[in-house]
Amino acid sequence: MAKTGTLYGVGLGPGAADLLSVRADKLVRNAKHVAFFRKQGRAGHGRQIAEGLLRSDVIEFPMEYPVTTEIPLSDPRYNEILAAFYETSVAHIYALLTSGEDVIVLCEGDPFFYGSFMHIYTRLQDKAQIEVVPAITGMSGAWTATSAPITWGDDILTVLMGTLPEATLADNLRQTDAAIIMKIGRNLPKITSALKTSGRYEDAYIVEYATMAGETISPLHSYEADKAPYFSIIVLHGHGRRP
Amino acid sequence: MAKTGTLYGVGLGPGAADLLSVRADKLVRNAKHVAFFRKQGRAGHGRQIAEGLLRSDVIEFPMEYPVTTEIPLSDPRYNEILAAFYETSVAHIYALLTSGEDVIVLCEGDPFFYGSFMHIYTRLQDKAQIEVVPAITGMSGAWTATSAPITWGDDILTVLMGTLPEATLADNLRQTDAAIIMKIGRNLPKITSALKTSGRYEDAYIVEYATMAGETISPLHSYEADKAPYFSIIVLHGHGRRP
Repeated sequence: MAKTGTLYGVGLGPGAADLLSVRADKLVRNAKHVAFFRKQGRAGHGRQIAEGLLRSDVIEFPMEYPVTTEIPLSDPRYNEILAAFYETSVAHIYALLTSGEDVIVLCEGDPFFYGSFMHIYTRLQDKAQIEVVPAITGMSGAWTATSAPITWGDDILTVLMGTLPEATLADNLRQTDAAIIMKIGRNLPKITSALKTSGRYEDAYIVEYATMAGETISPLHSYEADKAPYFSIIVLHGHGRRP
Repeated sequence: MAKTGTLYGVGLGPGAADLLSVRADKLVRNAKHVAFFRKQGRAGHGRQIAEGLLRSDVIEFPMEYPVTTEIPLSDPRYNEILAAFYETSVAHIYALLTSGEDVIVLCEGDPFFYGSFMHIYTRLQDKAQIEVVPAITGMSGAWTATSAPITWGDDILTVLMGTLPEATLADNLRQTDAAIIMKIGRNLPKITSALKTSGRYEDAYIVEYATMAGETISPLHSYEADKAPYFSIIVLHGHGRRP
C-alpha cells in the first residue's frame, strides 16, 4: 500500500522570486504536484511567483474561485458556493495524498495570514500530514518599499481590511500608532474617508505591487485613482521611542 | 577614489537557517563585512542564525548594547547612553562604506519591524546607499508553530509589546480579533493580568523559540513560569468568516 503523501502549504512571500525562503524555494523546485488558487481567466498570483522555479514536468491543479466580488459577502449563497468549491478542491488533493503523492499548495504571502489556504488546511488537518512554511508577508514587502520603519519601541501595529465598516476603520486608526490596510480595491473611497475622520490621511502611503515589477509608492493624498489594484497596501508608520 | 559601498539591512527571519529568503541567504554567504547587535556576553541572535552560512574569512563587527534592562526606559540616561552607542556603531560602519566596502547588518526577524537596525538606518539614510531585505517575522514563525491560522476574512490583528501599560494592553485585547504580544520576559504577570481582564486568557498560546531548536507551544493557562525567554511570543487567533 502506498505511503500517504504530505500536504505542504508553502508561503511564497510578497512577489519577488528571490524573496521565497530557502525552504520554500527547494519545495517548489522539487514539486511534482502543485495546487494554487486563481480567479477565472487569470494566471493566479501564487502561480506567477513560482513561474521559472517549477519542474518542466510538474502537474498543476488550478483551483478557480467560483465567485469573487460578483455576489455580496452578506448573501447566504456566497458561503454555500465557496464551501462547495473548497470541498471539491480538497477532495482532489486528498485523493492525491492517499495515492502517496506529496502536494504543494502555492500560497501568496504567508499561508496563515489571511488568504485561502487555511480553508484547505482546516478541512484536512485531522486527516492528513500537513506542513506549513511561513513566509514574508505582503505588508512586510510594502513597508520595506516605503523606505521607512513601520514600528519602533512600544508602537502598536493594527492590521485592518478595507472591507470593514468605515466607523470600525476610523476607530481603529484613531487608536493605533502604526497601521496596515489591505483588501483595498473599490473600498478606497471609504478607507480614505476613515483616514480623514481619524486624522491619519496626510501620513498614509499606498504601495502598489510591492517587491514586484510595477512597484509604486505614493503618499495617499497624491494618489489619484478611486480604486486600487488588488496588490495594494496602505501603510501608516509608527513613530515610537527612538534614542 | 574608491566607490562607496552599500549598506544592506538583511532580515534573517524567525530563526531557522532555511527560513532566510533566497536573497538574504546569498547576501549573507557572500558577505565580507557583517555587523550585528548582541548583549554583552552573548553570541547575538542574528549572528547565531547566520552561523554556518558565513565565509571563513568574514570580518565581524559585533555591536554590544551598553545597557538592556539595567536602567529603566524612563531614565533620561537610557536614551543618552543608547544614542551614543548607535553613533559609535554608525561611525564604524560609515567608515567602511566610504572606503568602498559593502556592509551587511544581520537582523533577526524583519529589519523594519521593531528591532535595532532602524537606529542605524535613520542615521545613514541621507548619507549612504542602503538596501533593506524584508524577512519572515518572528510572529509569523510563532503563529505557524501553533498549527492554526492567525487571521481569517476581515479579522483585525493587533500587535502589542508587553512593555506597554496593563490598561493599554487590556483595552487593545478587548477590541481586537487576533493579537500578537512580543517583548514578554518579566512582563508576563502584567500581560497575563491584561489577558484575564479582557477575557482573552483562556484562548492565548505562548510560543518559545519558534522555528528554532527548543521550540515549545503551550496554552498560556498551562504555562508555569512567571517570566519567559526573550524569544517568546503570545498568540491569540482570530476566528473570522470562514466558508
